[in-house]
Amino acid sequence: MTTNDVLALDATAQDLLFREARTANTFTDEPVTDEQVQALYDLVKYAPTAMNQQPLRVVLVRSAEARERLVSHMSDGNKAKTASAPLTAILAADYEFHHEMPTLFPHFPQAKDTVFAARSSREESARFNATIQLGYFILGVRAAGLAAGPMLGYDAEGINKEFFADGEHGVVSVVNIGKPGENAWYPRSPRLSFDEVFTTV
Amino acid sequence: MTTNDVLALDATAQDLLFREARTANTFTDEPVTDEQVQALYDLVKYAPTAMNQQPLRVVLVRSAEARERLVSHMSDGNKAKTASAPLTAILAADYEFHHEMPTLFPHFPQAKDTVFAARSSREESARFNATIQLGYFILGVRAAGLAAGPMLGYDAEGINKEFFADGEHGVVSVVNIGKPGENAWYPRSPRLSFDEVFTTV
Repeated sequence: MTTNDVLALDATAQDLLFREARTANTFTDEPVTDEQVQALYDLVKYAPTAMNQQPLRVVLVRSAEARERLVSHMSDGNKAKTASAPLTAILAADYEFHHEMPTLFPHFPQAKDTVFAARSSREESARFNATIQLGYFILGVRAAGLAAGPMLGYDAEGINKEFFADGEHGVVSVVNIGKPGENAWYPRSPRLSFDEVFTTV
Repeated sequence: MTTNDVLALDATAQDLLFREARTANTFTDEPVTDEQVQALYDLVKYAPTAMNQQPLRVVLVRSAEARERLVSHMSDGNKAKTASAPLTAILAADYEFHHEMPTLFPHFPQAKDTVFAARSSREESARFNATIQLGYFILGVRAAGLAAGPMLGYDAEGINKEFFADGEHGVVSVVNIGKPGENAWYPRSPRLSFDEVFTTV
């Protein structure tokens, strides 16, 4: 693929994050360490969220027992890869994120008790910002030299009850993580052209 | 700041995209060219969306007349910077994205008329995936050596009526783009620690 010289980002990084990285459906047995996950979080945590609210919370599914519980809530087409991935992460929005706001956004400490006083406004804001953070997280997995397999095919209510008994979290995606295995992906599907996406006024 | 050696991504790219990049509130007069925007799109378009649906649509606000119309719908605190940024982009979700699905996701051409037959399911999916793409877009602006100033403070209904008369698009963010100007940002606010975000089961 051709290098994009207009960008400041170097060609190797362009390939690693965007052009050569792919959504993986199979993985090798190579473990994903806590050190790798910490390193990728220590990078992507700097990317912005609205009022710095950072509502994303992540459950790393490592035990066989937890893995089995998670797989039972996945769609049939996602069960085998979720059962066999070296690591699976449940990404969720924390609807109680506002408790941290006076620390996270000291410019407007009142946010906790005004704009985020209502559960409905917290839920909308938490889901929106945790979804942006899902995008950052996927690129962070790639920055660690790993492949991500983000999935939406699952029983969300089942996962929320099983892993977030407090009723204050909502899953936004389940992401398999590891080194790509054999036949890890299909050929890449088409992308929309610049002219199909952008208009100028 | 310390380099993160566990990652595959090189330290310069880590700084460019995450550690040294900041949300900008002021910009220099240096123009942002179409070539730069095309280059960043040609990179971030490869990042994944569910079923490759790519619902993000972008309006580049370049004329003085369009800029004035946009500013009138921004919150007071966002008016001045939106009026003066070299380029402002309106990022929106296309609720009619399903028409492209047979091309974009040939593995499941029926998606258009089954899972995405209802406007409500299209709207939910389009907003979710366009929000992930907002995350990619912000990092793409940084990859181009520019600073992004994503905003949510605006009258969304007003913007939708003004710029998307078909009623089939919903704004997800308005993003100022340019080289950071004087006093472009406040000191960085705190980030949550790994242990505050991650649990292992």
